[in-house]
Amino acid sequence: MENESTKKWGFQVHQRFKTESAITLRAALTSLTENIDQNDSRPTIPLGHGDPSVFPSFRTANVVEDAIIDAVRSTKFNCYGPFFGILPARRAVADYLNRDLPYTLSPDDVYLTLGCKQAITVILSVLLRPGANILLPRPGWPYYETFTRQNNVEARLFDLLPEKGWEVDLDAVEALADKNTVAMVIINPGNPCGNVFTYQHLQKIAETARKLGIMVISDEVYDHLTFGNTPYVRMGVFGSTVPVITLGSISKRWIVPGWRLGWLVTCDPNGILQKSGVVDSIKEYINITSNPAATLIQGAVPQILEKTEEAFYSKIIDILRVAADICYNRIKEIPCIYCLNKPEGSMFVMVKLNPSLLEDINDDMEFCLKLAKEESVIVLPGIVVGMNNWLRITFAVEPSALEDGLGRIKAFYYRHAKK
Amino acid sequence: MENESTKKWGFQVHQRFKTESAITLRAALTSLTENIDQNDSRPTIPLGHGDPSVFPSFRTANVVEDAIIDAVRSTKFNCYGPFFGILPARRAVADYLNRDLPYTLSPDDVYLTLGCKQAITVILSVLLRPGANILLPRPGWPYYETFTRQNNVEARLFDLLPEKGWEVDLDAVEALADKNTVAMVIINPGNPCGNVFTYQHLQKIAETARKLGIMVISDEVYDHLTFGNTPYVRMGVFGSTVPVITLGSISKRWIVPGWRLGWLVTCDPNGILQKSGVVDSIKEYINITSNPAATLIQGAVPQILEKTEEAFYSKIIDILRVAADICYNRIKEIPCIYCLNKPEGSMFVMVKLNPSLLEDINDDMEFCLKLAKEESVIVLPGIVVGMNNWLRITFAVEPSALEDGLGRIKAFYYRHAKK
Repeated sequence: MENESTKKWGFQVHQRFKTESAITLRAALTSLTENIDQNDSRPTIPLGHGDPSVFPSFRTANVVEDAIIDAVRSTKFNCYGPFFGILPARRAVADYLNRDLPYTLSPDDVYLTLGCKQAITVILSVLLRPGANILLPRPGWPYYETFTRQNNVEARLFDLLPEKGWEVDLDAVEALADKNTVAMVIINPGNPCGNVFTYQHLQKIAETARKLGIMVISDEVYDHLTFGNTPYVRMGVFGSTVPVITLGSISKRWIVPGWRLGWLVTCDPNGILQKSGVVDSIKEYINITSNPAATLIQGAVPQILEKTEEAFYSKIIDILRVAADICYNRIKEIPCIYCLNKPEGSMFVMVKLNPSLLEDINDDMEFCLKLAKEESVIVLPGIVVGMNNWLRITFAVEPSALEDGLGRIKAFYYRHAKK
Repeated sequence: MENESTKKWGFQVHQRFKTESAITLRAALTSLTENIDQNDSRPTIPLGHGDPSVFPSFRTANVVEDAIIDAVRSTKFNCYGPFFGILPARRAVADYLNRDLPYTLSPDDVYLTLGCKQAITVILSVLLRPGANILLPRPGWPYYETFTRQNNVEARLFDLLPEKGWEVDLDAVEALADKNTVAMVIINPGNPCGNVFTYQHLQKIAETARKLGIMVISDEVYDHLTFGNTPYVRMGVFGSTVPVITLGSISKRWIVPGWRLGWLVTCDPNGILQKSGVVDSIKEYINITSNPAATLIQGAVPQILEKTEEAFYSKIIDILRVAADICYNRIKEIPCIYCLNKPEGSMFVMVKLNPSLLEDINDDMEFCLKLAKEESVIVLPGIVVGMNNWLRITFAVEPSALEDGLGRIKAFYYRHAKK
């Protein structure tokens, strides 16, 4: 009994997990947080991730909280649910998207998922056969690339162009695609860029994808969180041109990311995804692997999507608009970072870092590590989202905390500036 | 635009999902349900799966519902949570298990998962390297074998012995294991057999596993749901003999399977799983892939585990005991099925079918399909859990529905009995 450590046990582990865990966004944020000086009495300012739910200004609507309470008290949602989601919730999501589409989705087009993240897992798992490749935006949300690589499939990155308001480099898309390309991914409103694609640009994306014979996966997890001049348009509007897979969730617009409720929707009025077997494969994949979102949360979805008052949506948009303004203006006061495009949507802005103005900081990662240590401010290094020497800053925090955080970044700059 | 169906689209799908989806438990239940005669005005009696939450007698405790409401109103659990689970919930699970263990688990031994199912996914993913094999019980819960096969790893099945109260055939375990065997799985209280392992038998399992150098994965999702003569003992009691991975959830004891909250716990006071890299690999796997259970539900866990009154537990046990008695006695009145062991735990009993007594029914699948069609009663064919010509019947339904369902099975027998 004493000699456990020398005993021969027959279990070994998969080594493959080791290298991969370094590249996740969460791991980067964890490293930064661990770098914070425990002796700093100031509060940590979290400008690294898109979850303002802890701030009082961003508390979700009463009707959203009540939806859960009604679901609990009804006792109807304690049971196992169907793998694709309960019908009333699927219908509510279809109706929600239908408000913005020129054709009518049915509940059968909707699959409820465990947040938008599981929706990504489902569609990538279905499409990424060995030998396939997929076109992903750079910068982008890293899980797409992480998952693609985990499955030994090739991710081909097309640029978003900062000088064109972060539009897709469609020439690059055409050059990257070949007969094994299955899809291109867009994120609109943009994470990490805070951009919003115009109707005209989305139309060009649709036409390009159609020409290439690939579908568009449109990540709309920040849907309707827009506060600039560009009206919000869903990619699904062009579903007659090209099959679109729309991904979304209640996480961002309703500010409840911890409720883990998302959706995957086939926006495809011509039925191409059905004919090509993609729909059947989505169903089969979910049937085999799935562990659906909590039935309890699903039970709240109809009330959340149908009864949330316009006043709540406007309040959040107003806060985000003010916060984006603060962010944009304060950044101008910090010489080493530069914001080309004022954000119009989502919760983020990408800013370019100029390390040549700094004495002892060579890149974005070093900037963020030292910033965390010295100022207790968390900002995401651009390298995590695919852009070396950029930073992703979220402005979706309490406005006072945002002012405080940007003030600390300014002080940090002046302390490290080349003399 | 007209000629969509002839257009060459570049996406194809993974064909591998197709064949696999046939073998899931859920798919079997779906087929049976689809076989029900829509013109039968009688209610369908669902004796096929372990989810009594829809029946008034099995409503969860008030304190459990209140725990969710308190979590919602606190606004503290709308945020993204840590991938391993929030600390108060992990601590509550550790404390809950500690009541039954001779050593003390810490919150660091606990990983919260999306129901017990995700806990299974995590540990199998970590252990099932190419070339490995795992020992699974027959009969068992089919997801273990489905997942193992999906990952192209060999499942080796050892029998549970009906003539010995469904104890593990430990001779078979020894004969099946080799140097590539990583673990054996037990389910206690037993699904599908309704058995409860004695302290002595668990000790023998531990000693056998230790001798073979394999860990024990102990699925305790039905923990404490015992109502016979055998006291409930956790496998983790023998964690000093052999490393034990304990899997559990709030789904069964608290009758909220739709809340999707489970756990994986390393019960390993000698730290062998730590030294062998299994713990690190669990963490890495969860960090990479995980999409944790809803933070909102996690927030309710401490109250659920700590404040549920003894009266609720006893009420449920009393109902299950009565239901098991009804089930056992009514089955005696049906000559073509035979129950060797009165169930002492979980929500199920396995009964042996004798098709030779039936005129026009050749096996368990045919029995169940015709039963669904003619009597609107759902019972699980034993083949789904690995036992040809057995049936798995759940007695965890409203007692009146159970009487009704077993009465219909009796009528069904007499209609099909050989003259």
